[in-house]
Amino acid sequence: MSDIDLLARPHHDGSPLYVENQAPQLGETVTVRVRVPHAANVTELHVRQLWDAEPTFAAATVERHTDIEAWWTADVTCHNPVTPYRFLLQGADGEYLWLNGNGLHRRDVPDHSDFRLVTYPAPPAWAVDSIVYQVFPDRFARSKAAPPIAEAAPDWATPAAWEDPVDTRSPYVVGTQLFGGDLDGIREHLDHLERLGVTVLYLTPFFPARSNHRYDAATFDAVDPLLGGDAALDRLVAEAHRRGLRVLGDLTTNHTGDQHDWFRAARSDAAAPERDFYFFHDDGDYDSWLGVHTLPKLNHSSELLRERLFDRPDAPVRRWLSGANPLDGWRVDVANMTGRHNAEDVNHAVAGHMRRTLDDLDDPDGDKLLVGEHVHDHSADAQGSGWHGVMNYSGFTRPLWTWLRDKEFAPNFLGSPLAVPRLDGGSVAETIDEFGSLDPWRSRIHSFTLAGSHDTTRIRTLVGEDPAMVEVAAALLLTMPGIPMITYGDEIGMEGTSGEDGRRPMPWDENYWDARIFATYQALVDARRELDPLRTGGLRWVSVTGDSLTFVRESRSGAVLVHCARAAHEALTVPTAHLAGINEGHSVVSSAARITPVGASATLHADGPGYALWSWERQVPT
Amino acid sequence: MSDIDLLARPHHDGSPLYVENQAPQLGETVTVRVRVPHAANVTELHVRQLWDAEPTFAAATVERHTDIEAWWTADVTCHNPVTPYRFLLQGADGEYLWLNGNGLHRRDVPDHSDFRLVTYPAPPAWAVDSIVYQVFPDRFARSKAAPPIAEAAPDWATPAAWEDPVDTRSPYVVGTQLFGGDLDGIREHLDHLERLGVTVLYLTPFFPARSNHRYDAATFDAVDPLLGGDAALDRLVAEAHRRGLRVLGDLTTNHTGDQHDWFRAARSDAAAPERDFYFFHDDGDYDSWLGVHTLPKLNHSSELLRERLFDRPDAPVRRWLSGANPLDGWRVDVANMTGRHNAEDVNHAVAGHMRRTLDDLDDPDGDKLLVGEHVHDHSADAQGSGWHGVMNYSGFTRPLWTWLRDKEFAPNFLGSPLAVPRLDGGSVAETIDEFGSLDPWRSRIHSFTLAGSHDTTRIRTLVGEDPAMVEVAAALLLTMPGIPMITYGDEIGMEGTSGEDGRRPMPWDENYWDARIFATYQALVDARRELDPLRTGGLRWVSVTGDSLTFVRESRSGAVLVHCARAAHEALTVPTAHLAGINEGHSVVSSAARITPVGASATLHADGPGYALWSWERQVPT
Repeated sequence: MSDIDLLARPHHDGSPLYVENQAPQLGETVTVRVRVPHAANVTELHVRQLWDAEPTFAAATVERHTDIEAWWTADVTCHNPVTPYRFLLQGADGEYLWLNGNGLHRRDVPDHSDFRLVTYPAPPAWAVDSIVYQVFPDRFARSKAAPPIAEAAPDWATPAAWEDPVDTRSPYVVGTQLFGGDLDGIREHLDHLERLGVTVLYLTPFFPARSNHRYDAATFDAVDPLLGGDAALDRLVAEAHRRGLRVLGDLTTNHTGDQHDWFRAARSDAAAPERDFYFFHDDGDYDSWLGVHTLPKLNHSSELLRERLFDRPDAPVRRWLSGANPLDGWRVDVANMTGRHNAEDVNHAVAGHMRRTLDDLDDPDGDKLLVGEHVHDHSADAQGSGWHGVMNYSGFTRPLWTWLRDKEFAPNFLGSPLAVPRLDGGSVAETIDEFGSLDPWRSRIHSFTLAGSHDTTRIRTLVGEDPAMVEVAAALLLTMPGIPMITYGDEIGMEGTSGEDGRRPMPWDENYWDARIFATYQALVDARRELDPLRTGGLRWVSVTGDSLTFVRESRSGAVLVHCARAAHEALTVPTAHLAGINEGHSVVSSAARITPVGASATLHADGPGYALWSWERQVPT
Repeated sequence: MSDIDLLARPHHDGSPLYVENQAPQLGETVTVRVRVPHAANVTELHVRQLWDAEPTFAAATVERHTDIEAWWTADVTCHNPVTPYRFLLQGADGEYLWLNGNGLHRRDVPDHSDFRLVTYPAPPAWAVDSIVYQVFPDRFARSKAAPPIAEAAPDWATPAAWEDPVDTRSPYVVGTQLFGGDLDGIREHLDHLERLGVTVLYLTPFFPARSNHRYDAATFDAVDPLLGGDAALDRLVAEAHRRGLRVLGDLTTNHTGDQHDWFRAARSDAAAPERDFYFFHDDGDYDSWLGVHTLPKLNHSSELLRERLFDRPDAPVRRWLSGANPLDGWRVDVANMTGRHNAEDVNHAVAGHMRRTLDDLDDPDGDKLLVGEHVHDHSADAQGSGWHGVMNYSGFTRPLWTWLRDKEFAPNFLGSPLAVPRLDGGSVAETIDEFGSLDPWRSRIHSFTLAGSHDTTRIRTLVGEDPAMVEVAAALLLTMPGIPMITYGDEIGMEGTSGEDGRRPMPWDENYWDARIFATYQALVDARRELDPLRTGGLRWVSVTGDSLTFVRESRSGAVLVHCARAAHEALTVPTAHLAGINEGHSVVSSAARITPVGASATLHADGPGYALWSWERQVPT
């Protein structure tokens, strides 16, 4: 569709500007709107929706006209929990166009990129405004009262001083190097989170284990004493809540550690009720996560397992979200493999069970959030019945990396045998759009966008020499749809060639910080918290070139134009007719890039890698 | 990927040339092959497969080299019933390419177009060689012994003479006009099927009903006496089998007629066991197919319903496929909506139940075929656990129509409010590829390709003035992957502007036939039956222009190059290096088009709408 200017294209997305009812009930009829620039010459518009998998059509009508566009409305009835819909447009010249979540198409396209309405219970109201800060407890901070690590370290651990380098020699070494960060240490540094402006603290696992990452839980019933035990978590959550911060835990539903109470019971006695929690072979061997024997895989066909995980009052999914100082939700580890085992696939049943458990908790301080780890295409599991959202590596992190990675440093991505390629802005926008179109809008905006995580290369290392490139990554992170997740230390320019190498202890001496990067993160976090369109707005592309990406986020109240460049570029000019009100706006924050609206056009500049945000109140056409 | 010549692109598809094991078992490792022309400059090749939804990679190795290409092999293990896989290629220039079922991609793409291995039981061995002939019993032939229709017609019917026009005034009229074709009439004309060369007779419903189409079954336990009753079906199947023809029935699993035994029992008594077979409201009203009250929707959550439909010895799904003269399978009406009802979706459970019922029958004369009706994107339901294949309207019929439809005649397609557009060959090939990539290869080649059906405009009417265009449609129908389905009468050029209008009585006076069209169908059917590559070969595009589509089907034994043109075009030249052996081949059948291989290139001609098939024995490179 490159023959229609980006801004002159008919547009719809799942945001409130186009879909007023963001939490429809089963059977409810929802009004959907399409913005159709007159330049597109559309004479007829129909909505096509599925009902019990059968397409039905309804004609749309024009609700209002402006000088430059018409707004059409049509009704979609939510007959099913997930209702796919798209639009069929007839042009004045007899043209025939489909409009779906992946844009405009002159030929028939499959249903997977249809827009979607979802009638499952809505995510917690607070979630859409979140900015998440990921903390790896062993590496964030040691509390003042922490005992010397050499004394505290258990048998499996190799104690390390806070200033030591991470030992990345092999997974077996890297997992046992213990720096001794603890939960009281995190509590003592909540000022940092407030200073940065994030709203949610997400803790990687705090259960006792035999590794520093603790994804090999020995129990789900207690907090690791090395981290300060249950009381320390209680103090941390209480203090976080007092400051208005939410806290998420990290639960592994795919497997436990081989020292887990359940597994020890199961292994020692073939008649133990826990035996069915795992996949034991006749010879006593058992199935495990990718063949790693310390991580025996859980069997979710066991009703007793699900009762113990989800249903009992003391079930971990429930108990840590209850009580005086409850967590505000879970990030679910290895969500993609959970409940999948050869011929059996109960993944959606498990995710739905966990979700209903959360939905039923009824905490007066707000509903609970459930986000699944998915490192690749997550769309089959992100339709809204289970996880509210996922870690959006495929639709955000990878495209971001392909645009910003250094020419020389060629990182692999989580298991891929080839380095991530370096691609132009067009490919990046296409990838974001294509993956984004597979999820309901609600799942998309409740998924974590991230520039990296405890499992990947640090963004500072990925972009190479120029720290200004980190700021471009931060700008995209904090302005695109989704819940931004910042890995501890990214905001101060911490480095790391791999996930393991990136898990360096947080330096609290600010001399080791990149002050400019920190100020950039602060400013962008502030902008996101200030500007509703960045949190709830739709997404329209304004300009896409090899070295620049420009888009507008628009809500009912306002709009923010975002221009990002990975290199200096010739000035670009875009018409402002489709950005009504932009001339009355103002610059919010910027680095080496600039947005200059004058009259009927706006000029986009960049003297080097940089970003610019321009905000205005939206003039709702009447 | 337009910057790589079509034939110089790395290629893989699910056909035996690339996947030797076409019926893998769960847990089995399958060798897959990729053809990589040297021109593509590939230095590394990896296969990526999913295992419990987690991607894993394995390196491929070169199995053999020719002057122009390398064949790489890699192993894929079928850990799950459906195993998606694709390839990651590294070019000599550092390029990074994904190869999936929809071609080559320089950026990340979602998983939906991954190739797929399927471990569900294989379809019947006879199916892949099938050419299906669809008969609408009321309109095909009246037996010599048939009573005068005016006498035989029941109360609901308006009798019509065989020569009368179809009354298309409204659905209520068109459904009750009875011409009086019967099963003995079909039997008496099996010579026609043999003369045409088709191998499977597919009968639209033969159950008693109150319409000429009989999709409103009054029972599933008997053949409509108007058609000759059970004995006539028995005679027909016996005679068909004697001639080596298979016979398929047509069962509606989504709904029954309101005169069905079950519905009458259910409606008359709220305590009847059949009450739960339907969706009754408190006020006695009930849900029905698209609101048509004579077609009450079945509730497949009723275990008793499924027992009565599938499990009992006299259950219709089972009994009509058993006995002395059993049917060879079912086409399932409204397969897409079956088992889907608002918040409930048991569609895959129902389709799987029906499939297992068929798989268990163990008929010494061959396994049974199960094909679901899907008029739109069917991919979610065509992964192989239920229907062996579907009616492939979205991946074949619609793209075919967009290429061949007349400029003046603008037909709508099954519920769409806008006429099917007229598109160039590029869009047509893209649509075929994109929809095709969503299905496992096995589902794709066991799906019905069709140029139209009893539910659509006739192809002869669609293409407008020039009957040569029907021959182009027939050529694509009989040479593309899939089971070709010919609707009775298409082969003699029958017309009809809509599905209803197209259900005209078959004229048995050959003066009313288009002899050239009939000869073309005969020749193309013959070619398909003769040439194994047309039935089991892979598919590579050779040349695609606005007015021409050229592709090669290749099996282990041979290759067939197919050139189709919708209009006269300038001669096209394609290099033959990637078509080893073509120079030793020969023309099979052609009309206004021509394929002329000379030395290193082949020329493709067309003086008008036409087709050409060129066949050769494949030289397997060593």
